[in-house]
Amino acid sequence: MRNRLIVYVLSAGMMSSAVVAQSDTIAAYVQAHQKDMVATLIDFVSIPNVAGDAANLQRNAAFATEMLRARGFAVDVVETSGAPVVTGSLKVPGVQRTLMLYAHYDGQPVDPAKWKQEGPFNPVLRTGRLDASNLRDVPNPRSIDQFDPEWRLYGRAAADDKAPIVALVTALDALKTAKMTPTWNLKVLLDGEEESGSPGLMAQTATLRDRLAADLTLMLDAPAHPSGRPTLVFGVRGNVTFEITVYGARDELHSGHYGNWAPNPAFRLAQLLASMKDASGRVLIRGFYDGISPLTADERELLRAVPDDEPALLKLFGLAAPEPAAESLQEAYQRPSLTIRGLSSGHVGAAAAGVIPNFAVANLDMRLVTETRGGDMLRKVRSHIEAQGFHVVDSDPDDGTREKYRDIAKLVSTRATEAYRVSVTTPQARVIMTALTRAFNQPPVVLRTSGATGPMSEMSVATGAPVISVQTVNFDDNQHTDNENIRLGHFFAAVRTMAALVTAP
Amino acid sequence: MRNRLIVYVLSAGMMSSAVVAQSDTIAAYVQAHQKDMVATLIDFVSIPNVAGDAANLQRNAAFATEMLRARGFAVDVVETSGAPVVTGSLKVPGVQRTLMLYAHYDGQPVDPAKWKQEGPFNPVLRTGRLDASNLRDVPNPRSIDQFDPEWRLYGRAAADDKAPIVALVTALDALKTAKMTPTWNLKVLLDGEEESGSPGLMAQTATLRDRLAADLTLMLDAPAHPSGRPTLVFGVRGNVTFEITVYGARDELHSGHYGNWAPNPAFRLAQLLASMKDASGRVLIRGFYDGISPLTADERELLRAVPDDEPALLKLFGLAAPEPAAESLQEAYQRPSLTIRGLSSGHVGAAAAGVIPNFAVANLDMRLVTETRGGDMLRKVRSHIEAQGFHVVDSDPDDGTREKYRDIAKLVSTRATEAYRVSVTTPQARVIMTALTRAFNQPPVVLRTSGATGPMSEMSVATGAPVISVQTVNFDDNQHTDNENIRLGHFFAAVRTMAALVTAP
Repeated sequence: MRNRLIVYVLSAGMMSSAVVAQSDTIAAYVQAHQKDMVATLIDFVSIPNVAGDAANLQRNAAFATEMLRARGFAVDVVETSGAPVVTGSLKVPGVQRTLMLYAHYDGQPVDPAKWKQEGPFNPVLRTGRLDASNLRDVPNPRSIDQFDPEWRLYGRAAADDKAPIVALVTALDALKTAKMTPTWNLKVLLDGEEESGSPGLMAQTATLRDRLAADLTLMLDAPAHPSGRPTLVFGVRGNVTFEITVYGARDELHSGHYGNWAPNPAFRLAQLLASMKDASGRVLIRGFYDGISPLTADERELLRAVPDDEPALLKLFGLAAPEPAAESLQEAYQRPSLTIRGLSSGHVGAAAAGVIPNFAVANLDMRLVTETRGGDMLRKVRSHIEAQGFHVVDSDPDDGTREKYRDIAKLVSTRATEAYRVSVTTPQARVIMTALTRAFNQPPVVLRTSGATGPMSEMSVATGAPVISVQTVNFDDNQHTDNENIRLGHFFAAVRTMAALVTAP
Repeated sequence: MRNRLIVYVLSAGMMSSAVVAQSDTIAAYVQAHQKDMVATLIDFVSIPNVAGDAANLQRNAAFATEMLRARGFAVDVVETSGAPVVTGSLKVPGVQRTLMLYAHYDGQPVDPAKWKQEGPFNPVLRTGRLDASNLRDVPNPRSIDQFDPEWRLYGRAAADDKAPIVALVTALDALKTAKMTPTWNLKVLLDGEEESGSPGLMAQTATLRDRLAADLTLMLDAPAHPSGRPTLVFGVRGNVTFEITVYGARDELHSGHYGNWAPNPAFRLAQLLASMKDASGRVLIRGFYDGISPLTADERELLRAVPDDEPALLKLFGLAAPEPAAESLQEAYQRPSLTIRGLSSGHVGAAAAGVIPNFAVANLDMRLVTETRGGDMLRKVRSHIEAQGFHVVDSDPDDGTREKYRDIAKLVSTRATEAYRVSVTTPQARVIMTALTRAFNQPPVVLRTSGATGPMSEMSVATGAPVISVQTVNFDDNQHTDNENIRLGHFFAAVRTMAALVTAP
């Protein structure tokens, strides 16, 4: 039996001649305006945009404001404790529904010495990846009419997240030229502190409620699937981290004089951790997977349709196999994870000495799914530690606590970021999948849940709408490190994606 | 039923009037010669004696040689690759058996800045422990006739191991004054590299066989039991250390993108370690305790007779209880131990990040008993790791190994120091226990096995004789750190110990 969902996506992709015409029109516009697009992106990327550089962040906001006003948006620049939030609104006559498009103009911190160019804000066009043979710089990019899609523009925020913004306004220009109008009232929200957790925006979501309210929110951020196809992400895992410290004697003790007698906190920690997860990768904490229903046949088919190349990943990472409990990468994202991020106790290697350590630390994270909330999961962890015989404390034990309890564990946790997921079968999701399938004549890559964590849940609350992440840039864009770059083929294709989104049926 | 061994020791302690007379005579001699003893020790401690200081190590050897020659010893100074070994021999007419007395004149490295005096080799007399209230320096110690036994002389090697050497020659003087002769031919072996593992001596034990041969070897080193009574140690635990590295991906991986899918080496290491030892402290490695017979009633009584104050230790260390499997400190020493000395993987605390570590390391040691040899025990560890599903390697895995094995562990070990034990019921042991019991009118503290590791096994091979460690200095002597000191009460009492040893029945 062919899966119904896939059948749905494929049938949605059977295009009418009108749709083919739109797609061709947009593609032709992009073909004719490559020079302007690249020049605009170079101008935008040339404005430094790291946290703390208030003057330049204002310049970025002004640049973005001008781009939106030029397309007819009513724009408000909302000052915050950090960088301004740019909000734009474009009413379309006769249209009731509203689409919110979120992106950000700030960039990750930079270490200029690591960039293979004058600086992160001096964009350079090159013929490919930095590790490509025959790589060369392409001079005078502003004078070029036609670009090889393999070429890449290098600069901070080129991909994360300025290219999607330029692609969006280019799409609006292309539609206008073709005398086509968006099928939604459009709102744009350009964050200036995304790389810092968006504190300014999050502090004002209540005040801005009217400006943020929408029927659907699309986050135009993050890389597309390595296959290169436009990628829709319908959920993210949440995250909560915690650190366990198990105590031994007040000081390190001689392992000869006290080995076999003084409790060894490193062994007790190892035993505690081993009680949490078995060798197959299955978590043993009571209730860890509670509330997660087995995947339906449709959901399984959705996961199987993602064109992951797991053998290539294993080879890249130097691994013989994934964890035995992991059916597949996509399947793994549908469950909460428990990861030891670090261990520390005593001394190893050349620093090792004949001592019993006085404490042992493990730092862990749990990636959450919508069925597993951070607070509940932390309570289960705490109960589990107690069930292993530990007295759980919140700070280093005092003498009285030490005298009373043989096994003491300190548990310290961060605030949880909750998971988010919108069903691929909601009407808004269907609309977006249909639009992209028509525009590219094949379905987008659909991720039920991204393994990583992002503020989709917060954005859903802020806009009162379901949130889908639309990911268009190349996966190998170095977005959070040096030599960030956007592949021009992805940049140009993103215009077709944006046009399809704002004209979705 | 009173234990036979204790009964034996007590009956040996019933002194004849001749023995009482000897003990009184020696005590009176010490009382009269405190000034000379302290002056000699000050002179000896004033000569720097750290490894690498060849000229001063020669001066120490010359000082020791002169002390022995003055008591009639034939002395040979054996040059080695490091510091000289001083060997002395004193024949006693009509005596067949030979007693070897081992001590060392070198000291631990020093950090002068941490000493509360001009320098580690500028001895200072003080009224007590450094942390005592009302502590004061005692000026002009060379002019004092009678010393408070609580006073301490501070200086490197004052306790470890120069005081026992001065006590020994003083005992010979006292016996001569009393017209008493040793009941053994005496040999003295003064090592100059003990704190560095005695490489010079160990390289020449075959060549020196005749000079080293004895019927009994006594090591005059290390602190007495905290109770302050002379302490006889009949064995030491051996030691072998090893380090396990468990591998994950070649690099750290994002814990969101790959958590639940990429194997986590920190969890696999925790599971492996937990499989080695249970929460009670019992080691689970197959055959770990093989060959160790249950203790006999006599042996148990011997252990129980050690006046350990475990509640005080627990309080000092901030522990509620020892490991559940440990009946007592002394009982713990009769079994091999398995200690995690250190753990390291990824990052903890402020450095923690959302990654799956790429490797995890545990450093361990096993303290050995005579029934458990280092090589065998390492083979058992290796088999255990393999039985947990790991492919065990000796160096970091190459790409081919990574592709082939899901779980890879590197095992690297040091050369073992083997354990040593001589039975307390051997004739030589009985003789020594009897001698000390008579001299002090109470049995010495008898340790079947010291928890720590020392070269008793090597010394037994070198001298072809059973070895007993005779420990006379204060336990709180800071011997391997700064502000080393000898409590004068212990120093003076050591003369009576030495006299009793060389005149043992």
